Formats: sequence, structure tokens, C-alpha cells
Amino acid sequence: MNRNLETFFKPRSIAVVGASRDSRKIGHAALKNILISDYECDIYPINPKESEILGLKCYKKLTYVPGSIDLVLISVPAAIVPPILKDCVQKNVKNVIIISSGFSEAGNHELENELRRIIEKSNMCVLGPNVMGYKNASDGLDASFVFGVPRKGNLALISQSGALGIGMIYLANNEFVGVSKIIGVGNKIDINDDDLIDYFAQDPETKVIGLYIESVKDGRAFMNSIKACNKPVLVVKAGRSKSGARATASHTGSMAGSDKIYGAAIRQAGGIRCRDIIELFDRARALAGQPPAQGNRIGIITNGGGLGILLTDACEENGLVIPKLSSKTYKKIDEILPDIIKPNNPVDLIGDAGFFRYEATTRVLLEDPDIDGVIVASVHGGYARPREFTGAILKMVREQKLHEEFNKPILATWVGGKEFEDLVWDLKSAGVPIYPSSWRTARSMMALYLEGERIKREKNQKL
Amino acid sequence: MNRNLETFFKPRSIAVVGASRDSRKIGHAALKNILISDYECDIYPINPKESEILGLKCYKKLTYVPGSIDLVLISVPAAIVPPILKDCVQKNVKNVIIISSGFSEAGNHELENELRRIIEKSNMCVLGPNVMGYKNASDGLDASFVFGVPRKGNLALISQSGALGIGMIYLANNEFVGVSKIIGVGNKIDINDDDLIDYFAQDPETKVIGLYIESVKDGRAFMNSIKACNKPVLVVKAGRSKSGARATASHTGSMAGSDKIYGAAIRQAGGIRCRDIIELFDRARALAGQPPAQGNRIGIITNGGGLGILLTDACEENGLVIPKLSSKTYKKIDEILPDIIKPNNPVDLIGDAGFFRYEATTRVLLEDPDIDGVIVASVHGGYARPREFTGAILKMVREQKLHEEFNKPILATWVGGKEFEDLVWDLKSAGVPIYPSSWRTARSMMALYLEGERIKREKNQKL
Repeated sequence: MNRNLETFFKPRSIAVVGASRDSRKIGHAALKNILISDYECDIYPINPKESEILGLKCYKKLTYVPGSIDLVLISVPAAIVPPILKDCVQKNVKNVIIISSGFSEAGNHELENELRRIIEKSNMCVLGPNVMGYKNASDGLDASFVFGVPRKGNLALISQSGALGIGMIYLANNEFVGVSKIIGVGNKIDINDDDLIDYFAQDPETKVIGLYIESVKDGRAFMNSIKACNKPVLVVKAGRSKSGARATASHTGSMAGSDKIYGAAIRQAGGIRCRDIIELFDRARALAGQPPAQGNRIGIITNGGGLGILLTDACEENGLVIPKLSSKTYKKIDEILPDIIKPNNPVDLIGDAGFFRYEATTRVLLEDPDIDGVIVASVHGGYARPREFTGAILKMVREQKLHEEFNKPILATWVGGKEFEDLVWDLKSAGVPIYPSSWRTARSMMALYLEGERIKREKNQKL
Repeated sequence: MNRNLETFFKPRSIAVVGASRDSRKIGHAALKNILISDYECDIYPINPKESEILGLKCYKKLTYVPGSIDLVLISVPAAIVPPILKDCVQKNVKNVIIISSGFSEAGNHELENELRRIIEKSNMCVLGPNVMGYKNASDGLDASFVFGVPRKGNLALISQSGALGIGMIYLANNEFVGVSKIIGVGNKIDINDDDLIDYFAQDPETKVIGLYIESVKDGRAFMNSIKACNKPVLVVKAGRSKSGARATASHTGSMAGSDKIYGAAIRQAGGIRCRDIIELFDRARALAGQPPAQGNRIGIITNGGGLGILLTDACEENGLVIPKLSSKTYKKIDEILPDIIKPNNPVDLIGDAGFFRYEATTRVLLEDPDIDGVIVASVHGGYARPREFTGAILKMVREQKLHEEFNKPILATWVGGKEFEDLVWDLKSAGVPIYPSSWRTARSMMALYLEGERIKREKNQKL
């Protein structure tokens, strides 16, 4: 479809229909979120009973607003939404967000169809109904009724579930994953997942796109948008199981469809399916912070043999390969290691490894043309030095950006306690992906490999 | 084998051969750990060059110690271990821990065989070589050379990897998982995994047994011990993949064996295989803190439909069932929920659910004879009340202990940020299992179901 959502996400004027002085009302929360946004635009509260709300002049009717309106948020009872939507058409409004619920999700299909008929005859872009709105962190605008300010970053999030969308804002902040935009799609009567993927594909602030979906309205358009997208698209598709599909039907009134078909279609389109929200964030952090892997050959560095084996198992089970070291790399690492141990892949730096062994070995593996990505691991054995471990990773991530040939992903993992947790924040806040489980590390490296493959296909198609 | 390890774990006298005044030496660390233990016993440092170490009278030779010795820790160069071991035989020592490394793991098989020959002719129980020792948290004794004091609890940990063993102590503390004993097994020339499983099966302080293994010396004895064990046995078996098996060979010099055969044998013996250390701890927390599930029919409670679907998917993919509600339960829950929503499984309490809805619904599901376990979930949508959510769980966990018919497992999960994390500590410190991912929650519930099945088989065999 490729609709122009520029004024939708960056409106110069916004009206809130159903704005209220009552702080318990959604129309109050939505107005306040816009008002306290670090964003320049005209704001018009609309309420027939008020003349002023939150210090702003209030209009009795949308059509009474003097200037043009780029975006209208509607938060009124469901039955009154159709006439308000007609006001929007009359006023030549470009974009509308229908926050109100009580439509198809509540069995009220006829009322939803009425909205559809009004929209069809207009040029408006309409989000919802039954939706939280969006938060545009890139530009500082909060056009939603929910609390929470996401950290600014490069992940665009699309959620069919309002509650999960909100939960993801908090989760993202907690995981130090920066967000460009987060948007709920609700009942999707007009603006659809594919429209948003198309928009985020062009959005310079977005590097990774993540979706939580329960159903797709137009499967072909959805897959085409993923296929055309020049950025990694992570998809959590809920309702995989039989009971899950039943629960989906009762949640959003939509059919979950055959899961296998979805899975195959998403993969074929180049999307990366994630098992749950946590995996989506794990991979988003890797894709936003690290270059993609040009192949699936991974080098593993550890200070404990056991952890190296667990990582090897997890990598191989996710389609990655842990190759033997080339003789050149073997020789280089042999000089770094203490005499009592011989190089291998995983490279065991043994328990007392400090900054030097970690840094030098990571460098050697990055230099090796037969290695496409590096996982650096530390287990808190008695002699481990967590700060030297993370220091070495931070140094190599800086070097990675300076040297073309080091342009390979580095991921980190650890087994230990509090001492590590504090350092983990240092890494996370510097954008370095680190995970407390070998499985999660391997799954994220797999995503970097899939993204590398996607880019290769993209290049081949252009040739 | 069923060897008596009572004096091994609760010695009345301990000697440290290779005790040192030099704080960088392992023999110093081991002596100090015993000395600062909250445990009553005689301690004898042995060192031919010293007359006093850390305020204790030092003996030149083990055989010069006046009293009898229950446990000897040996930390001397590998070549000197055989004569020391002979001293142990001469002194009628009951138990020995050979901390020293430099044996089969370094290719020195002949020296290891020499130890074997000395032990064979004795009645000694010998742990190691190449081992960290053990920490007996139940009785407050630290007979290891490594740092870290585990929180006292009911998980006995056996680790073939020293470094991972130590890392697990920190991890256990951080995850609020209490430990009864943690022990490294190293090269296993005498005391073996099966001996330890047999001992922990009888140990009143141990409720759950967890193992990290790379290889097993005597497969049949190992499986028989798991089969005979009256407690859940969690097994992380590393070296599953081809490269993982190669890495195992270079780590402990042992063959990983066919993974499929291991997997089937562990399952058949009634053990629960875990994918990695994190999963082992997730499940240990559930098994130590909650009753087993008498069946696989799970009720799910959530304040967000999306999270309910993700949990349903994860449960079904792990062999659990999310049944439709009986008409009796439907009616009871219908009275609890607001009018706008109808009961289902998952039960959606909708976004503004507080203490009452969570508590009352959990109670109804526990009362339902067609439900074997309950998962309570919260997503931090704008109106969620994390403290009421955790408060309701804490209340129902208390009730669970008071009422026979409530004797079903309760697990919790959430999607959100910092506000939840603080509350998560409240739950963890009260022993309530809560996980930040639907997958991990389902995998832990699966372990409670498998444990329920194991107990049923055990009962049937006794009939």
C-alpha cells in the first residue's frame, strides 16, 4: 500500500476529541501525554461541556477548530465515534487514532463496519479502534493515553495487544533497548501492519522492526511488506498451539490461522520469528547494536570449559557452526595462552583470564577470515575478573567500529551473580548485547546470521 | 554402590596437606575456608616447613597428627600426591579430597592410575583429583578452596566443571535459590555422580538434586541411582552437538557418548534433562518451592490477553494442556470478573485487575479438581498494579500450605520493567517461583508435572 504516514507520526496539529478535566478519564491522559511531550505542535482539546482543559482553549466541536488538523485522537463512547469520524472527514483531517473500544473485539461488528464505510470515502489514515495510540520516541511525541516514556533508540515496535505494547515499553527501558516508535494496531480497520512496516522501512530513526501479532488481516500484503523491507523484521506470532488459537479468537476476535503456514511464510519473506517477547528484545538488542554476521562460523572464547561446551551445543542447535581453528589462528592464540593449555574452538582462556587474554584472543578471532562472529563468555569461578572481561569487550567493540575487517558481531554471556549484573549494565548501556544464558546468546547470534543472509539476498536481487 | 559419605560431608576432624602461609596459594584458601566456616571440628594444617599457619598448630607430616582424621584435603603438586595418599592410608583416614590437578585432564593418565591403585586397596572415599571440593551449606562447612558462600536451602548441586560449579554458587545466590551442598566431582577416580545422588537421596536437607555433567564413568550405575532416587534429579548434560562433543573431549578428556542415548536413558530413569544452567535453576526453584503437579491440566490467569496466549502456546509446546473451564468454575469466575468480559482459560482479568480479582480467581482454579497447576501472569499495562498482583500470589501461596485441596503448584510470570523487578525479589525471597518469560514459566511447570508423574510411578512400584 505504501501510504504516507509522515503527518501521522509528525503532526503539526493535534486535536483530542473526548478530552476531559477528569484525570481518571482516558481523554485526559491522552491530552496530557501530548501536552507534556518534548514536541512542538498545536493542541486542541474538544469537549462540548468545557471551555478550557489543562490550560488549553477547548472547542465544543472538531469543526470549530480554526486551523487545519493533522491528527485527531478520539476517546469517546463507541456509539458516538461514527459522527465524530464524519466531523473528521468534513474538517479534512489527515489522520485519526480511534482509542475507543467496544467494536468487533466486543462482538460489535456492525458498528465497526459503519466506521469502515465512513473511512472508505475519505483520504484519512485511521488507526484502531481499540488502540493505545503511539509513542514517537525519535521526535519526542507521545500520542497515546498510557504511561511510560521509552528510551530513545532504533527499535520500532508494533503490537496487536495494547497491554503487551505497554509492558514492552517498561521491558525495553529495563533491558536498555532503545525504541524509535511504539504503536498499537488494535482492530486494524485501516492502518495495518504492512503500512507500518513500509513506513518504518523508510524511517531513518529505525534500524530494527519488531511485531507482536495474533492475526494478520491481509496475509499477502503483510508478507510482501516484510519481503520489501530493507531492515530486519522480528515477529512474535502468538496463537501457535491449539489452545493458543482458541484464546486468540476470544482475545481479539480474530482467527489465528495455520501456524505452520505462517511460520513458513514469515521465514520465506525474510522475517525472523521469535518465540516470545524476551527473545524479540534479545535479538533486537543484537541487531541494533552489532553488525550482521556474514556467515554462520562462530568463534567462542571462555574462561571455563563447561560454559564453552554449553555455548557450542546451543550454537549448533540453532544452525551455527563452531569450526576448528585455522593453523594461523591457532599459532596466534597459542602465544597468548599460558603454556599449560592449547588453543581450540571454543578457546578456553582458563579460570584466571584477565583483560589481556580476553582482548587479544577476541582480536585474533575477529581478524580470522574463517570466523563470522565471536561470542565472549565468562563464568565467575573464584579467580574470574568480571571487570576485565567486560573491559576487554568494550575495547573490542570500540575497535570493531574503527577497523573495516573487524566488522563482525560480538556477543557476550556470563554465569555468575551480582558482581556481573552491575557490569552487565555497563555493557547494555553501551549497546553491547550480553545475555545470562548460553541459549539466548546463540539465538541472538542466529538472528545476526539470518540478517546477514537477508542482506546477501537483497544485494543479489539488485544485481 | 551406596557408600557412606556421612563423615565425608560432616567430618569431626579435617587436615589440609599443602596448607600455606602464602595467601595466593590454594592450600591457604582451602585452610581459611574451613577455619572461617560456622562449623565445629578439629583442623590440622600439614606443611613440612611451617610450625603455625593462620593461628593453627602445623604438622610436618599427616602421620604426625595425634587424633584420627575424618577428611583430608590435598593441595600439593601432582607428582607428590601418591605418597601423600599413602600417608592417608597409613593414618586410616576415612575421606580424601584431591584438589591438585595435572592428571588425566592434562594427559597424565599413568599418574592417575597410580592413585587408583592406592585407593583400591583402602577403604577410603576419594573425591577428585582436579576438583574444587565441596561447600556443605546445610551444616555451614566450606571444604573448598574457592570463594563464595551459598544461601542455605534445598538444592544439592553436583558439577563436573569446577568453574561452572563456582559460577553456580553466585548464580544461585543471585536467583535466591538456596543450596544444601555444592560439590565438584573432577576426574571422578573414586567418588562418582551415582554415589552422590545416592547420598543426597537420603540427605534430609536436600529436596532437589541438580547435575552438570559432561560424561559419565559408569552409565548403568548413574541411571540406577537416578531411578532409585526419591527426589527430582535435574541433569544438564553438555556436549550434545558434534562440536560440543569435540570440546568436551578437550575439556575433561572424556567421551561425551551418543547424546540421544543419554537423553532417552535419563528420561527413562526419571531424571529431568535441562537445556542449560538457567533452566536447571528455574526448575530447581519451582521443585523446591512448590508441590508437584498431579496432572498436566494448567489454568492460566492474566491481566492481558496477549500474554495469556503466549503462555498457552509455551505450555502446549511442553506437553501441558490448557483445558476449557468446567461450568462450575466458569460460574464462580464469572461472578468475580467485570461484566464486560467472560471467563475462559486463560482467564483474562483485564488491564485494571487488582488484588481481589487475582486472589479470588487463583482460589477458584486451585479448588477446581480438573486443574492441576496455576500460572498467574501480569503485564505492566498502564493500569496494572504490580504490588497487588504479587500480594495476591503471596496470599494464595500461604493458603496453599494451609489447605490440603490447594496442594497444587502456583508459578508466576510478568512482562514489564523495574517496578516489577523489585517485587520479584519479594516473591523470590519467599520461595515463590516467578519468571520473566512465558517459555521459562512453562518449562518449569513441565518439570513439576514430570515430578508428579515420577512420584506416581514410585507409589505404583511400592504397591
